[in-house]
Amino acid sequence: MTPSEALRAVLDRVDRDLGASLDRLFALLRIQSISTDPAYAPHCRTAAEHVAADLRGLGFETSVRPTEGHPVVIGKSPLGKSGSPPFDGKAPRVLFYGHYDVQPVDPLDLWKTPPFEPRIETVDGGRKIIVARGACDDKGQAMTFIEACRAFKAVTGELPLDITMMIEGEEECGSKHLSGFVRDNAGEIKRDLALVCDTGMWDTQTPSITTSLRGLVYEEVRLTCADRDLHSGLFGGAARNPIHVLAEVLAAMHKPDGSVAIPGFYIGVHELPPDIKADLAGLDLTPEKFLGPIGLKIPAGEKDRMLIEQISTRPTAEVNGIIGGYTGEGAKTVIPGKAMAKVSFRLVGAQDPEKIRAAFRDFVRARVPADCSVEFGSFSSAPAFEVAFDNPALGKARAALAEEWGKKALTIGAGGSIPIVGDFKTVLGMDTLMVGFALDDDRVHSPNEKYDLRSFHKGIRSWARILAALAG
Amino acid sequence: MTPSEALRAVLDRVDRDLGASLDRLFALLRIQSISTDPAYAPHCRTAAEHVAADLRGLGFETSVRPTEGHPVVIGKSPLGKSGSPPFDGKAPRVLFYGHYDVQPVDPLDLWKTPPFEPRIETVDGGRKIIVARGACDDKGQAMTFIEACRAFKAVTGELPLDITMMIEGEEECGSKHLSGFVRDNAGEIKRDLALVCDTGMWDTQTPSITTSLRGLVYEEVRLTCADRDLHSGLFGGAARNPIHVLAEVLAAMHKPDGSVAIPGFYIGVHELPPDIKADLAGLDLTPEKFLGPIGLKIPAGEKDRMLIEQISTRPTAEVNGIIGGYTGEGAKTVIPGKAMAKVSFRLVGAQDPEKIRAAFRDFVRARVPADCSVEFGSFSSAPAFEVAFDNPALGKARAALAEEWGKKALTIGAGGSIPIVGDFKTVLGMDTLMVGFALDDDRVHSPNEKYDLRSFHKGIRSWARILAALAG
Repeated sequence: MTPSEALRAVLDRVDRDLGASLDRLFALLRIQSISTDPAYAPHCRTAAEHVAADLRGLGFETSVRPTEGHPVVIGKSPLGKSGSPPFDGKAPRVLFYGHYDVQPVDPLDLWKTPPFEPRIETVDGGRKIIVARGACDDKGQAMTFIEACRAFKAVTGELPLDITMMIEGEEECGSKHLSGFVRDNAGEIKRDLALVCDTGMWDTQTPSITTSLRGLVYEEVRLTCADRDLHSGLFGGAARNPIHVLAEVLAAMHKPDGSVAIPGFYIGVHELPPDIKADLAGLDLTPEKFLGPIGLKIPAGEKDRMLIEQISTRPTAEVNGIIGGYTGEGAKTVIPGKAMAKVSFRLVGAQDPEKIRAAFRDFVRARVPADCSVEFGSFSSAPAFEVAFDNPALGKARAALAEEWGKKALTIGAGGSIPIVGDFKTVLGMDTLMVGFALDDDRVHSPNEKYDLRSFHKGIRSWARILAALAG
Repeated sequence: MTPSEALRAVLDRVDRDLGASLDRLFALLRIQSISTDPAYAPHCRTAAEHVAADLRGLGFETSVRPTEGHPVVIGKSPLGKSGSPPFDGKAPRVLFYGHYDVQPVDPLDLWKTPPFEPRIETVDGGRKIIVARGACDDKGQAMTFIEACRAFKAVTGELPLDITMMIEGEEECGSKHLSGFVRDNAGEIKRDLALVCDTGMWDTQTPSITTSLRGLVYEEVRLTCADRDLHSGLFGGAARNPIHVLAEVLAAMHKPDGSVAIPGFYIGVHELPPDIKADLAGLDLTPEKFLGPIGLKIPAGEKDRMLIEQISTRPTAEVNGIIGGYTGEGAKTVIPGKAMAKVSFRLVGAQDPEKIRAAFRDFVRARVPADCSVEFGSFSSAPAFEVAFDNPALGKARAALAEEWGKKALTIGAGGSIPIVGDFKTVLGMDTLMVGFALDDDRVHSPNEKYDLRSFHKGIRSWARILAALAG
């Protein structure tokens, strides 16, 4: 078989085997692997064993590895049919990352059917959906990759390239032991490229690869003026009010054009290549579409940027919380001694978290009167992640997705961060392609979570095409 | 006896009777009339009866008048010796206001001796102090007036002018029934002038009359942007943050020179007469003296005003509280849907509370983006109070105080409000002279409250002189 004949056979197999693929997904969905609630720890263990057994059946050398929390399933690529590695060194060795744990299910009474009894429902216009907790996030998405591997194995007797699997069980509670695990097992986990299936499509028709994630710097600012709370009748007019000082600092943080006024903030922020920017412009993400559902109309960011840039490829400064003085019912004429704000920055490109943090602190200190004092607390410091647009694997994956969906595949930036992808880059020096088939209406983390049957089916086919492309 | 002979005899009597005056004060101080704690209601009743009996002994026609809270003691001036009113119509009829209730005593373990066991202590340099809860506020201060009346009665057989007494029992818990009581009993309570002994001296040597009180407008601002809390990764850069909007409003409220930027805010603010301003300048109230004890150094108010003006005769705008977003431990990357601030204004002169309120609301609304909304709550609306500097009673009282203390009596503005004084003006059209002998170190409302024996003794003598002057 030529590679293209093989791929055609694999895709046929995916189509024919869809019923069995669904049965396997349903078996996994029935396991109540809620990671945040200690009462469900045995179910998490069961899910890990289930995934490990499935991968073992595909020839992976699997192990269920303990952590201080829920275990991580590791599967190493089988040898080729001939007993020797089938890889010629040109194809990348890949690491696939997914997670077997799911979010809690409450409020349970909002579920139309029990969350761990998966079913197919036919909705408007004959669209079929898989309903269950984890149907999308991430059991359904992870299984698209595993089923693609299965089809290759069935048709060609082997996997098309060197694959290592890492399926963790703590993504929904902060992946708190994964960073250490990756560090401790870097030799096994570091491959040429990571693949993740935990993101979404732009819309039901448009396949997408997430090529950047914004980084984060999170600061707490604690301001002290007087050494106690004061009566505004006695001291009002003479005593400095820390809420006023904070308000001045926070108001000064943005310029009238919506840009961030902290000196040096934009160092390391790149312009998008013109073709990528044109793709984004073509999406025509309007304020009505994006802000309407949350009750807003007017984009609040940089005035000279498209809305889609504001939320994905441009950096931000945001006050996440503020408190000071009297905030209960009624009136109290107090001038507080202290006030506090939490401020965070979403970073892009090569913005340096530590330089941003230092620049922000200088910016605040310059605005604090000489007889007042400020203390800072630090919570996060993660650089942005981005895949180079000329990464050959990215080009191959885009082409493969375009084949499957009959439409150019978008590269999009995600506004938030996925910490493990940052670790892959900073700890292991490994890029990640994030390809996923979730849709905006999947109710991820909410009652009646669903995954379109079409996402599942074409997701498997998409991975088959991407694996073939990367191998070729 | 000529009036001046009578006054000399009254002052001699005050001096001779000081021991008995102290005994009477101590008897009142032993009553545990804590008004905020319902458990002490019987003690409040006892204190009211005690005061009423004492006034009855001076010939006042007294009654203990019920309210929905603690009772008010009313005493009406006795007739003159001849059986007909001794007043020729030139002397003002006066209302004296004081309160028999006291603050709670906790933390009790910080008291050196039990708070309701009054005693005399000799401190540095032979200075004698009366130590007890209420020694100053307001039992000691109110008794200076009553003892002055007693001395007149003892020497001349009658009071020097028409006096109505109103001694209430809820001052320490907000005088919440007094305003209604005054309204309902306006006929009895409205006199030509009110006298209050619940304020302080500038320092141990300088007698003072409080001639103005700042008014108050208190607003709550509730801002809504998105209709829910948002994830800053998904929406950061596009969704309006209500904390940013609030910070911009609050930062815009003051100009760089420290003045309030709300249009029309200074309408009704008068300049002090040059002689009064010169008196205030002569006090040399430095930032070290006033702000040092609370850990500050730099006055925060209008840059072109003396510190003493900033805290007493100039209006202010102050944020008393603010809250929004996540304020707990650690980090949460939220863009809140709502944020709230409490903002109050201290008013002076003829500033109109309702116009200030409306101007503030316009000022806020002008800064709220079109897709966000703001709601306001109102808590206080009290105009400033001021006695005209050419009020003849003020001149007489200043002269009388100067005689007693051997030093020019100051007229000062108080930065806070005394609501009942506002009611006397707005409901009854009656001015108030606030003359008091408290000192900054009296520990009012705190453990080991004290009143200087000298304040008590010379306070009685001061009132004797003021009453004589008003009668003359």
